[in-house]
Amino acid sequence: MQGYTPGEQPDSPEIVKLNTNENPYPPPTAVIEALRAIEGADLRRYPSPLADDFRTLAGLIHGVDPESILAVNGGDELLRLLLTTFVEPSETLAVMQPSYSLYPVLAEVAGCKLLEIPLNGAWEMPDDMPAILREQAVKMLILVNPHAPTGGLLPADYLRGLAREFKGILVLDEAYADFIDPELAYDSIPLVCELGNVLILRTLSKGYSLAGLRFGYGIGPTGLIHPMATKTRDSYNTDHISQKLARAALESRDEAAKTWERVRRSREWLRGELAGLGIDTLPSQSNFLLAEISAAIDTADLYLALKERGVLVRHFDQPRLDNRLRITVGSETDNEILIEKLRDILQ
Amino acid sequence: MQGYTPGEQPDSPEIVKLNTNENPYPPPTAVIEALRAIEGADLRRYPSPLADDFRTLAGLIHGVDPESILAVNGGDELLRLLLTTFVEPSETLAVMQPSYSLYPVLAEVAGCKLLEIPLNGAWEMPDDMPAILREQAVKMLILVNPHAPTGGLLPADYLRGLAREFKGILVLDEAYADFIDPELAYDSIPLVCELGNVLILRTLSKGYSLAGLRFGYGIGPTGLIHPMATKTRDSYNTDHISQKLARAALESRDEAAKTWERVRRSREWLRGELAGLGIDTLPSQSNFLLAEISAAIDTADLYLALKERGVLVRHFDQPRLDNRLRITVGSETDNEILIEKLRDILQ
Repeated sequence: MQGYTPGEQPDSPEIVKLNTNENPYPPPTAVIEALRAIEGADLRRYPSPLADDFRTLAGLIHGVDPESILAVNGGDELLRLLLTTFVEPSETLAVMQPSYSLYPVLAEVAGCKLLEIPLNGAWEMPDDMPAILREQAVKMLILVNPHAPTGGLLPADYLRGLAREFKGILVLDEAYADFIDPELAYDSIPLVCELGNVLILRTLSKGYSLAGLRFGYGIGPTGLIHPMATKTRDSYNTDHISQKLARAALESRDEAAKTWERVRRSREWLRGELAGLGIDTLPSQSNFLLAEISAAIDTADLYLALKERGVLVRHFDQPRLDNRLRITVGSETDNEILIEKLRDILQ
Repeated sequence: MQGYTPGEQPDSPEIVKLNTNENPYPPPTAVIEALRAIEGADLRRYPSPLADDFRTLAGLIHGVDPESILAVNGGDELLRLLLTTFVEPSETLAVMQPSYSLYPVLAEVAGCKLLEIPLNGAWEMPDDMPAILREQAVKMLILVNPHAPTGGLLPADYLRGLAREFKGILVLDEAYADFIDPELAYDSIPLVCELGNVLILRTLSKGYSLAGLRFGYGIGPTGLIHPMATKTRDSYNTDHISQKLARAALESRDEAAKTWERVRRSREWLRGELAGLGIDTLPSQSNFLLAEISAAIDTADLYLALKERGVLVRHFDQPRLDNRLRITVGSETDNEILIEKLRDILQ
């Protein structure tokens, strides 16, 4: 089997790095203050096994019981736990195609069956999702919302309808949810409370500029959270430092939200500039754009030309994506450099 | 199924905590310096997926190739990865009985078969280990060395002989190896280099006073390390901060070694004092003692009486251990308090 291939992580600070969807701005000030407050003696003892203080805070913020929160060592851990805990080898995990390329790897590690459901020609959900899930006896469906790599957002009402008709577990990977336009008033938390089969994954990696910290959390009914919290999770899966910093991050939501607003503004600016270069993008509620490269241009060559000029974007060498680039929305300066280099190359 | 039950982790600093084998002294100074040097911007990007700098340093220290090192989010992660990667559900994991109570839980999560091989009447390995492993077609044997909860050390020569006769994978969980008397010159690294089926687990939790950090590593032949590094491991399993601090810890081996020497001195002092109270202990090369409580005393009651007096030790309510207490070697003061409270209770 093939493992997951993470995006390139070059060391050089000169690289304009628009390939792995990091937030271009630093984490909230309080996170660094929390880091400075850690003392050596704090590290000597085992951390809280379930990150109790974090659970309490996250429960308060999302309006759910702390027992509905599971802290994890990066969102990937929760995805793995979901498969380990709820999907037997004889059962089926469904994901959309294309989607986050880790999902098929996790299915292979778990040894379960994988159903990849193609997005339709408009890069949207097929009309007959409930029927597909029923006919294929799907045990778990993972949707990343906003979708990756398109950036498209499924409304909560659509998800509610889907979850109601679905006999399995609907996992909403909301890695990029912080970047959704607040005017859309997207809120999937009520689904967790109303239904027994919806679990939400959140991460601090993107919205809170803490990809280096590895901290995420699940929000779900206790029927889904409890078995992972008490049985399949590594005994101390999150460390003392990350628990403290994650709390400080969530307490700084307002400060982080200013970076989300900046990213949204840059996203729309970038769409306009790319359009000016003849490059179409899908509307995105995320911190990246999926850019369609004209058939006259070899997309892999364009990716390499950008890389040679110090700009790293993501090219997925797979059907439907081979003529597209996924471009992270960077800082204002990074975005300008991208446009400048693209203009150089294309002219 | 039942999950793993970690030892109690009370918040109160007044508790004399001798129940989960932490090092009583703070982590090396350089670890805190490394913590102070972390900047917010460092956390914005993903960490090195395989902790490359740590691997290089650990390889250098142990005299193996960096490719023979796997950094993990606490030793528990490596144990889980070993089962996921190498033991199929139809295959058998063997552990000694009694031993680290997490092993059976991991076997159950992995869904594989479990063979618990009783230690003999002297709490040592049975003579016919190779035959048992062969007859039961064992795929993986995990030995914790020094053993928990006895503290007994198996010499490297014994392990070499066992590994040579064993067709499966021998995992040496050396969580407590830092506390071995240097005069014994225990060194299992040559087994990794000589044989293809030995993998060593090390952790920074005990020897380096970093239980709160969650950082451990495997040392093994690339044939065993590579599949975990590239396939079954979560994509970014260790975070940026812990990678930096783990490096600083290993670089401070000499400073940490002074705490190991203090623990060894206290261990022997404690054995003597316990003997003076009529409590026998097995010789230990670890940072804990397994204390045998006289049949005239109910061990669970003694555990509770100590707890009421603010001293927490570990009592395992299981066959062969129900009349014993596992006592972590604490600071000089903690050890004195333990002896004082025990004397109070027993008189």
